[in-house]
Amino acid sequence: MNIIDIITKKKNKGVLSYNEIKYAVDGFLSLEVKDYQMSSLLMAIAINSMSDEEIFNLTKIMLDSGDKIDLSSIDGIKVDKHSTGGVGDKTTLVVAPLVASCGVPIAKMSGRGLGFTGGTIDKLESIKNFKTSITNEEFIKQVNNIGIAIVSQSGNLVPADKKIYALRDVTGTTESIPLIASSIMSKKIASGADKIVLDVKVGRGAFMKNIEDARKLSEIMIKIGKNFGKEVVALITNMDYPLGNTIGNALEVKEAIDTLNGKGEERFTRFCLIISAYMISIGKQIPIEDALDMATEKLNNKEGLNKFNELVKAQGGDINNIEMSNNKLELKSKKSGYITDINPVKLAKFANLLGAGRSKKEDIINHKVGIILNKKVNDEVKIDDTLLYVFCDNDIDIDELYDAFTISENNIDEVRIIYDIIR
Amino acid sequence: MNIIDIITKKKNKGVLSYNEIKYAVDGFLSLEVKDYQMSSLLMAIAINSMSDEEIFNLTKIMLDSGDKIDLSSIDGIKVDKHSTGGVGDKTTLVVAPLVASCGVPIAKMSGRGLGFTGGTIDKLESIKNFKTSITNEEFIKQVNNIGIAIVSQSGNLVPADKKIYALRDVTGTTESIPLIASSIMSKKIASGADKIVLDVKVGRGAFMKNIEDARKLSEIMIKIGKNFGKEVVALITNMDYPLGNTIGNALEVKEAIDTLNGKGEERFTRFCLIISAYMISIGKQIPIEDALDMATEKLNNKEGLNKFNELVKAQGGDINNIEMSNNKLELKSKKSGYITDINPVKLAKFANLLGAGRSKKEDIINHKVGIILNKKVNDEVKIDDTLLYVFCDNDIDIDELYDAFTISENNIDEVRIIYDIIR
Repeated sequence: MNIIDIITKKKNKGVLSYNEIKYAVDGFLSLEVKDYQMSSLLMAIAINSMSDEEIFNLTKIMLDSGDKIDLSSIDGIKVDKHSTGGVGDKTTLVVAPLVASCGVPIAKMSGRGLGFTGGTIDKLESIKNFKTSITNEEFIKQVNNIGIAIVSQSGNLVPADKKIYALRDVTGTTESIPLIASSIMSKKIASGADKIVLDVKVGRGAFMKNIEDARKLSEIMIKIGKNFGKEVVALITNMDYPLGNTIGNALEVKEAIDTLNGKGEERFTRFCLIISAYMISIGKQIPIEDALDMATEKLNNKEGLNKFNELVKAQGGDINNIEMSNNKLELKSKKSGYITDINPVKLAKFANLLGAGRSKKEDIINHKVGIILNKKVNDEVKIDDTLLYVFCDNDIDIDELYDAFTISENNIDEVRIIYDIIR
Repeated sequence: MNIIDIITKKKNKGVLSYNEIKYAVDGFLSLEVKDYQMSSLLMAIAINSMSDEEIFNLTKIMLDSGDKIDLSSIDGIKVDKHSTGGVGDKTTLVVAPLVASCGVPIAKMSGRGLGFTGGTIDKLESIKNFKTSITNEEFIKQVNNIGIAIVSQSGNLVPADKKIYALRDVTGTTESIPLIASSIMSKKIASGADKIVLDVKVGRGAFMKNIEDARKLSEIMIKIGKNFGKEVVALITNMDYPLGNTIGNALEVKEAIDTLNGKGEERFTRFCLIISAYMISIGKQIPIEDALDMATEKLNNKEGLNKFNELVKAQGGDINNIEMSNNKLELKSKKSGYITDINPVKLAKFANLLGAGRSKKEDIINHKVGIILNKKVNDEVKIDDTLLYVFCDNDIDIDELYDAFTISENNIDEVRIIYDIIR
């Protein structure tokens, strides 16, 4: 077997065998297959795609490249959740404690962010002293004690994905359904949960630009799940507008707390309840309507908020110490009318420039900076109304953020939150 | 401009601008674009192809990456010839002196071989003391003196192609019409000839496996030529069987001499006369029939052979000193019937193992080893007739060479030499 034949086979739309994929992936990890060969193969896969069988095999081979977390010493059905990533996506911070407060154990490994904004782990690190790196034993003990733990991924979970992802990121091969599906699912399966709810985002602020692609991605991830004995539900959700009203790490933690306190933005709150309901439904094996009632109750009676406080305390964090930048700038509307569009990418890029996200893996995140939207899509706006606030360390010009808003005479149809549910 | 956007554009079947291609090629030469990014782009090109305009631009950018040879101080129309490469292809050694003997100046830069067997330069180096590396001044002076020179490509001719080709060779992107066309034509144009005859080989022993692809490649090379003011004629020729009856460097030089002496294998002789005729026809601007008559006359009256001897002498070679390995093995037929197939790839791979070709650029060629076929396709054969001789340094088992022959009861249709002529 040699790597050039394998690359050429995929270039010519061939179907790679288990052994051929293994040769490529293992060879890449052992440095026998060079990065310029792997990037060539990845591009051939990105263009010519893979069969279901190839995707299962790729997932298995990546999974087998590292450790797997054993959650069997935790009672009950362990449910995990994954979002394909969006702008202002602090959903996990709300749904994980809400679901845990319903008695579904949440043993969650989360990632750091690369791209627009921080990941869940970055966000949690806005809370002073919050420990995201604990041993596997402590992790499992904590879930058994309080029903929830959110930690950063261990170093040796799916090393093949780590190395391949880093290469995809610089070679134009991030957008590929087989590569995205196997990357997500290998990590989710290695993390040990029994069932998984996928939040597959679609729109300008997401990897997937259209619903058709999001559906294809969802379907293959569900099939991969089945192949490994894991029930998977995928929700295809709208990422054309920012999620909630904050972008930035500390700000998003504060918004999550507000949401758990019943004071969240209405659309985002509804979104969190729906995601929670699907996790509770598969975790407790109850109808979705009952699960939604349960989640709503736990939001209203603050048990979700209490669970979040328990989580923060258990991992050493000081919930009263979430620092923000002192400099608060204001963007005021120059027009009146209805806000008919808010571009999430423009906001995210700006937040990234402030330091809220990483451009390179080595970048250090500034947790204290970010954006609070004061208006959402379909809100009426008058001249001089505040559109948003920017928290930043230096005095900067924020006028370019006007480009993120479209203000028109008439409002638009109601914004959909969920496009489809696939299982 | 950034390389990831350029790669992504081509991944999504976009058309790259001159500036985008230049950014990629120049960046690759200056090491800002990494090899893993270039290989990803090359694979996207290999799968999604390029428009004519993109191919012209790529050719121009590669051409501009290095020196161009100025042949203007040589009188007359300078005609070059290029073969896409085959097994036993010693055509240049015959046609170059034949054409030169008709008064068409041949100022030829040739390559070394990578793959099955040596290139023209490797073959010439089988002749003791033959100098393939001379200064540009000596090169031009020699053509003005005796009408012919064949030298190795100078170091700084199309460096972009050199670097890109080395990467293609190890990343499964050699087979790509836009990449092959721009690679060949940038080198041919940089070499300074006015007109070019292309020998586009098709079949098992060639890059192009079918006539349709060979035709596409020919057409785009002709268009590139036009774009740069060079008349190009492409002959699509059969590479399903070995060319002539020898494979190996010294052996092929001897066969070329035999051919110029009127004692060559009949099909190969005819092939050389046709290629010569097209070169003479465009070089002297005379009808092809007249050119063929002229080439045939120069073969018959040994003026072509004399020109070859002049060439060897001018470049310091000793025509009487072409060394062969002492060990001569014989493969005898075990069957009787007609030879209905001789597989060129099997012979070439075996010759390569003997040391006649390179697997890696650094490999050193053994000029003295090779294979002489004693039978050709459609020859009758009896048990114990010699099928071929192997010249090698060590006593080896040559029985696997039986696999290269198919012997059947009935012979096959006459083997075509030329499939098509495109101009």
